[in-house]
Amino acid sequence: MKAVAELQVIPIGSGVSVRKEVTRAVEILKRFDLNVETHASGSDMEGEMADIFAAVAEVHETLHREGSVRLISYLKLETRTDEIPTLAGKRI
Amino acid sequence: MKAVAELQVIPIGSGVSVRKEVTRAVEILKRFDLNVETHASGSDMEGEMADIFAAVAEVHETLHREGSVRLISYLKLETRTDEIPTLAGKRI
Amino acid sequence: MKAVAELQVIPIGSGVSVRKEVTRAVEILKRFDLNVETHASGSDMEGEMADIFAAVAEVHETLHREGSVRLISYLKLETRTDEIPTLAGKRI
Amino acid sequence: MKAVAELQVIPIGSGVSVRKEVTRAVEILKRFDLNVETHASGSDMEGEMADIFAAVAEVHETLHREGSVRLISYLKLETRTDEIPTLAGKRI
Repeated sequence: MKAVAELQVIPIGSGVSVRKEVTRAVEILKRFDLNVETHASGSDMEGEMADIFAAVAEVHETLHREGSVRLISYLKLETRTDEIPTLAGKRI
Repeated sequence: MKAVAELQVIPIGSGVSVRKEVTRAVEILKRFDLNVETHASGSDMEGEMADIFAAVAEVHETLHREGSVRLISYLKLETRTDEIPTLAGKRI
Repeated sequence: MKAVAELQVIPIGSGVSVRKEVTRAVEILKRFDLNVETHASGSDMEGEMADIFAAVAEVHETLHREGSVRLISYLKLETRTDEIPTLAGKRI
Repeated sequence: MKAVAELQVIPIGSGVSVRKEVTRAVEILKRFDLNVETHASGSDMEGEMADIFAAVAEVHETLHREGSVRLISYLKLETRTDEIPTLAGKRI
């Protein structure tokens, strides 16, 4: 099932700047078969729901392996049956 | 990897009351190997990250199959490597 | 106090398409003294925290006055004391 | 205008445990004319929308004054015109 989503991942306890971890998270998302668009408050994604979940899991697993002790992600996930959801279709 | 999460699923275009869909979503979450605690703004969950994603996917797929045309979910997902994350450990 | 924020407002029960209400919400945000950047999953904003709250309140009040029966908003709000938070500073 | 809301506030860069800041945030929310119910992923609130915004602003200002350098809040805010929104009315 196709979905659009937005992910914001926050490392807790890694310091006031989280740029390194967020940059790494975006790199990981882009390895998946997803259309990824970054903005100031997260990354928008379009693709299969299963790939979105796999990408979020990979972000958590990789950042933990690379030293992040605690991570919280905020994921918005949208699906619909009347049309294929796309990022382009959601722009104002 | 163990995780704690919070899910709020919103049916868009199903009418002003969304109680039927939300009740169904909670029923579905409880079928998974997750500790589920409902509250006024969503359902908190504790278990394997993979089971949390499987449960959210099942909620979307089932609600669509049962007639919901458009769904948006808000998922908070937390993991940590210094201890096992639990709902009990997050209560104030 | 300066803040950056992201707002996504969802009309519940207004139909499957919510483009009209979302377009109106963005119009309202732009009337305030805020730097507003829209993307596929919401509107990013930069300005005074008080103006952000005033803008969100105005969105709810106006959309209700124009017929929306039920609204749910998702607001991310960020403040910091070591530097002025900006949207530009949060881009990857 | 009456509203129900959920707030989760995350101190970034304050260390892996954020219990002290979260406990303080809940204390502050309870000083306002709001019905507050805490759970594992945040605090649900019921009251006037203006009081909810005032309470969130006070949480940010107080935590910063007491040493938090960077804070991100996730606020869900719900209003409706067909009935008074209450936490009790949202329980499943």
